[in-house]
Amino acid sequence: MNSIALQLNKSLEGTQAGSLLSEMGKRFFFPRGIIAQAAEASKKATKYNATAGMAFNNNQPLILSSIKNSITGLEAKDYITYAPTPGDRELRELWLEKIKIKNPSIKEIHTSLPIIVPGLTSGISNCADLFLNPGDNIVIPDLHWGNYDLILKTRKEINIHTFKFFRDGRINIQSLKETLISSAKNGKVSLLLNFPNNPTGYSPTKSEAESIAQAIKDVALMDIKILVMADDAYFGLFYEDEIYKESIFSLIANLHNNVLAVKIDGATKEDYAWGLRVGFITFAGKGLTKEHTDALEQKLMGSVRSSFSSSPKLSQNLVKKALLSLDYSRDKAEFESLMKARYLKVKEILEKRTNGKRLKELPFNSGYFMTFETTPGYNERLREELLEVGVGTIALGDTSFRIAYSSVDKSNLEDLFSIIFSVSDNLQ
Amino acid sequence: MNSIALQLNKSLEGTQAGSLLSEMGKRFFFPRGIIAQAAEASKKATKYNATAGMAFNNNQPLILSSIKNSITGLEAKDYITYAPTPGDRELRELWLEKIKIKNPSIKEIHTSLPIIVPGLTSGISNCADLFLNPGDNIVIPDLHWGNYDLILKTRKEINIHTFKFFRDGRINIQSLKETLISSAKNGKVSLLLNFPNNPTGYSPTKSEAESIAQAIKDVALMDIKILVMADDAYFGLFYEDEIYKESIFSLIANLHNNVLAVKIDGATKEDYAWGLRVGFITFAGKGLTKEHTDALEQKLMGSVRSSFSSSPKLSQNLVKKALLSLDYSRDKAEFESLMKARYLKVKEILEKRTNGKRLKELPFNSGYFMTFETTPGYNERLREELLEVGVGTIALGDTSFRIAYSSVDKSNLEDLFSIIFSVSDNLQ
Repeated sequence: MNSIALQLNKSLEGTQAGSLLSEMGKRFFFPRGIIAQAAEASKKATKYNATAGMAFNNNQPLILSSIKNSITGLEAKDYITYAPTPGDRELRELWLEKIKIKNPSIKEIHTSLPIIVPGLTSGISNCADLFLNPGDNIVIPDLHWGNYDLILKTRKEINIHTFKFFRDGRINIQSLKETLISSAKNGKVSLLLNFPNNPTGYSPTKSEAESIAQAIKDVALMDIKILVMADDAYFGLFYEDEIYKESIFSLIANLHNNVLAVKIDGATKEDYAWGLRVGFITFAGKGLTKEHTDALEQKLMGSVRSSFSSSPKLSQNLVKKALLSLDYSRDKAEFESLMKARYLKVKEILEKRTNGKRLKELPFNSGYFMTFETTPGYNERLREELLEVGVGTIALGDTSFRIAYSSVDKSNLEDLFSIIFSVSDNLQ
Repeated sequence: MNSIALQLNKSLEGTQAGSLLSEMGKRFFFPRGIIAQAAEASKKATKYNATAGMAFNNNQPLILSSIKNSITGLEAKDYITYAPTPGDRELRELWLEKIKIKNPSIKEIHTSLPIIVPGLTSGISNCADLFLNPGDNIVIPDLHWGNYDLILKTRKEINIHTFKFFRDGRINIQSLKETLISSAKNGKVSLLLNFPNNPTGYSPTKSEAESIAQAIKDVALMDIKILVMADDAYFGLFYEDEIYKESIFSLIANLHNNVLAVKIDGATKEDYAWGLRVGFITFAGKGLTKEHTDALEQKLMGSVRSSFSSSPKLSQNLVKKALLSLDYSRDKAEFESLMKARYLKVKEILEKRTNGKRLKELPFNSGYFMTFETTPGYNERLREELLEVGVGTIALGDTSFRIAYSSVDKSNLEDLFSIIFSVSDNLQ
């Protein structure tokens, strides 16, 4: 194994992070190669810098006119050149600052500096690379984003163990805990949580969030090391007072020496920038010092460098500029109130409905979606039938039928649901 | 294994592509899930589309003002929404058209439609996922981009076997062929070629290119299946008449039934758009029909979806717009002549030099770089010494010392090399 990798492994020895590393994770390191030498030169090579695999003229990067003419308010060097492997430093610092504002209870907790990846999928995939071996077990809710299967099972041959997400309209924490315990293997288990949950649009209440954390702690107390990944894609769109308004990461970040918390989030949904591909990975865990999280960052940079090299720089700088802009808070508040109004409208429609009662809505209180539970196979038949009348919906698994009210204007929701209900009523 | 994956494997049965798939490659498929259903809805859901995990209002995506105000000449829906998993269809078609213009000898050869990935590293990494198992052997030149080691060896545990790139100032094709033969395992071997080569800046002459193809064919005739990846990052910057002006992919794309050719290229260097992260993967091989390449595209889409989901859409549309713009050819010609002038200047400096003779230049005729060969360890000492006088260079391995003349103005080259030579002469 490479000597830098060994050194990083040594730094992590005795920590939960060190114990949880996959074989690939153990091998990862950030080489002292071209990128490191170029970084050194960017500080010291004040006369001539002949390191970069880019083309410069008069200290400016070459750039096609059409591209240059499409961008306003950014210098070419701020978007056409390579971004650093871990991402733009200022954006990473700014994002961490925002994380701590949105999650005040971890204000004083040490975390790594977020590393930038091209979207949430890349965040999950790179974390799986770092921490999960083929054949390892991971626990996720039975109601989950379909891409988890492709990332974890198809790509990485990780065994997915699902827990029952709901019981009696609440998160089934007993099922979560039992599944964690029964899935532990060689003193290790992983958990991937996603709140607001896709597809249901459900986020835990304060007491549910605390019970989840307690369940994880109980398992940790059984001398089981636990990786907890918080997929916070839809973070922030919380429509009810009772919801726990921080990421579950807050309650895990300093929970127990056996628990490593990873926050995977991004501008994708939080900042309405789906196609820009700006995601972040942040580590924390009880007992982890800066030396430890630095080692994890170096390992993750090895994963980044060996899978996509660096994230799109233009996207990073657009997000940074947006976060710093005067319009930002106003825009976000406006969009959130738009989404909340739709949520309330959907709730009202469901409450008042007189037909379509075959469709049972699952609990929802946040995010972009709501999901009906159907009899097996009915969801796909209903989806196909609705397409025939020009209405697009999503059928997931055998029994989930998802509506993204995020993409339908409030004024159309009444009509949308009335079509869904009547098509459902007419479907044998 | 998933039934769609099995079906794709069946489609590829009996072809070189089918034989070359890795275990992961065999598992890959593109699920009929959210993305496929959303694609269906985008055609049929003319009334309401409640599929997308995005937020729309009045048929327009929500977008932060700051981001919107930074982009000119593109609609928000063309850059802030998700790109399709395989990338923007028009850009894929346009890129293939350009490939065929730049490589006229494959004009009539069937290839897949290029799939878009966020840069060349992602291209290589995703191809390795598709075709290489841990423990497989891959052949690359001894002089190669350092990141190959991280992608192939560190990430994927593939055994790297190097051939001697040069002998007597020419590509050592005998070493290439012998290494291919000795590296074949279970009737299979892989080869990764990179022209213009990083770090040397060397591209094969017409006769060298033909000899390379012949060597590969000779090995194929021994009933060995060969995956040939052409890393064409620096394609197009050819400064000498004798150079083979097409990609080596042209000579492999229809070479033999045992050979699968993969072209990995991108806007990164070819279109001076390093930070945008727009790369492409294209397949071809003798005997491969559209049915076969469609199956490969579906497999690659599974790899894409499970590693980064989709490539940045703004970047894709900026590249597309640039390729279609009236300035494009003029800009490219201008940049190429700038680079060629630097190349000629470097050649002149080396020819006329009276000092620094300890540094032996390796052959170069193309791309961004030239490389000196040094005694072992001297390269790093020289690099460090040069940093002290404000000059940034790259030391690779034990004996390579790389100068990116692409990033130094022609008017400064004389001074740059004179500093390098005199620092070298003064270094014990």
